[in-house]
Amino acid sequence: MADPQATPQRALRDAMGSFATGVTIVTTRSAAGEDIGRTANSFSSVSLDPPMILWSLARSSSSHAAFAEARHFAVHVLAADQDELSGRFAGKSADRFAGLETERGAEGIPLLRHCAARFECRTVYRYDGGDHVIFVGEVTGFQRSDAAPLLFHGGRYGRLVRQRATPAAPERPETLGAGNLAWLLSRSFHELRAASAEARAKLDLTDPHYAVLTLLGHRDGLPLAHVLPLASQRGAEVGRCDCAALAERGLVRMDPQPDAPDPALHLTEAGRDTLIRVVAAIRAAEADLLGRLAEEDARVLLDLLGALARSDSRGWPPALPA
Amino acid sequence: MADPQATPQRALRDAMGSFATGVTIVTTRSAAGEDIGRTANSFSSVSLDPPMILWSLARSSSSHAAFAEARHFAVHVLAADQDELSGRFAGKSADRFAGLETERGAEGIPLLRHCAARFECRTVYRYDGGDHVIFVGEVTGFQRSDAAPLLFHGGRYGRLVRQRATPAAPERPETLGAGNLAWLLSRSFHELRAASAEARAKLDLTDPHYAVLTLLGHRDGLPLAHVLPLASQRGAEVGRCDCAALAERGLVRMDPQPDAPDPALHLTEAGRDTLIRVVAAIRAAEADLLGRLAEEDARVLLDLLGALARSDSRGWPPALPA
Repeated sequence: MADPQATPQRALRDAMGSFATGVTIVTTRSAAGEDIGRTANSFSSVSLDPPMILWSLARSSSSHAAFAEARHFAVHVLAADQDELSGRFAGKSADRFAGLETERGAEGIPLLRHCAARFECRTVYRYDGGDHVIFVGEVTGFQRSDAAPLLFHGGRYGRLVRQRATPAAPERPETLGAGNLAWLLSRSFHELRAASAEARAKLDLTDPHYAVLTLLGHRDGLPLAHVLPLASQRGAEVGRCDCAALAERGLVRMDPQPDAPDPALHLTEAGRDTLIRVVAAIRAAEADLLGRLAEEDARVLLDLLGALARSDSRGWPPALPA
Repeated sequence: MADPQATPQRALRDAMGSFATGVTIVTTRSAAGEDIGRTANSFSSVSLDPPMILWSLARSSSSHAAFAEARHFAVHVLAADQDELSGRFAGKSADRFAGLETERGAEGIPLLRHCAARFECRTVYRYDGGDHVIFVGEVTGFQRSDAAPLLFHGGRYGRLVRQRATPAAPERPETLGAGNLAWLLSRSFHELRAASAEARAKLDLTDPHYAVLTLLGHRDGLPLAHVLPLASQRGAEVGRCDCAALAERGLVRMDPQPDAPDPALHLTEAGRDTLIRVVAAIRAAEADLLGRLAEEDARVLLDLLGALARSDSRGWPPALPA
């Protein structure tokens, strides 16, 4: 279990880091009237009646004297998008509060905004905790939002997703099932493709026509000689007659190029409107799919798929038409 | 921010629940020699030198007397798959340790196995914490594993994923890009499909042939009259001649059915081997894709895609061939 290479103190620190926590910024005001703030993940709620919370601070911290003397402090539980703020109050910045909107609490302590939760506290105990001091505060006021929390675990930031049921058992070697990425991707992809196909059928757009419009939506003004191979990468073979048909329908404009034999292709307003209608149908299907997840889970899913999806440099974003 | 409908104590509890935590089980042995254990999320690491941790327990808890008298206790940081254990030690079970393998620590305190981390402690302080008591222990021994942590937030269990960069800005209305589910799904799906296409090409399997083999892989022995429409759902039109070709190649066996005009189709050993080779290529591509993520992130991705993928009841698991 424990890494035998690590020094005992490093190994202990790693073991302590196995306990995941939120991240807080604790603030107060020094006797000299200076705003003080430290990132801390040693927060813990303690008591409901009376309402009490605790956190601990290294005796060696430059903020120690200020907190030891302060009669009030505030704890700000950070939201998932506040990792930058966490870093700022963990580092050695000269003025951590620079540019931050603050309110003022008891005895002028600085209060930060837009956090997941905030507790204004009166210091009631300072307990010995080895190389740290444990500060216990009575909660005199608090706020909460529904923001997803920033997490800290193993020395890194993280996000939270809800616990789910155990995945399906492994399949037989000749089948793919609910435990396979291919199966899961194809399920969701199929729903999006069905929405796209329905919208295209209503607009009388064939696969090659849609491939050309989508390509021009990303890179308007491409010469015909480039449109044909790029659009054909999406599966359906695209020919000159497809482009001519789109021009005849007024969805694409072919402009002669001064120094080239081929015209450049542009989306017309009608072409753009047609494309927008298909994309809107796909976006609606996306919203329907993602609506099956909690908002923060949907965000995590997009993040993870983004980490999976490698971009290539051919200037043609979608790997397949949806 | 705070919900005005909630009672003040409920609102405070909700605000405290905004701070995400890991989950621990704290164990000790009562003076009478009874094993005691409680789920707690009020754990916090305190000091490295000397090594100290804390947790707090309600004075009203039935375990309070035992912990107040105990000279030793152990804290077990739970792994993501230990939510059942957490529930057991949070509830009113008569014997929470029933059926659990335990080791024994100082003075016979029970130690649980397979946790994310474990701290054996000597009680050094018991501090007042309102309706709770804060127990501070000096760490006398510890273990750690690389297991992903179980999380608790807002009264629910959760899992952790690593913090990632902010997603791409929204696209123009006529394009789909890296912020869109359709784009992201199509990227990854395309990689899997390419692996599948390559394997099928090597085995000289057309799309219709592969569709038939895959269908039989899931539901062997289907009558021909059912195979044709089901296999055709996957995109490529499947005809009787495709099935005949597969039979001729020895990949499929057609058995006459006593009371039906149509034969039933079975995978032969050669057919199963062929199918396994394609599936193995897809699985390898899946492993390559998922290998771009940390192991726990890959697990979360599969969970979230599973929540997205609605099953239908047509007995035909894959929505599209990979």
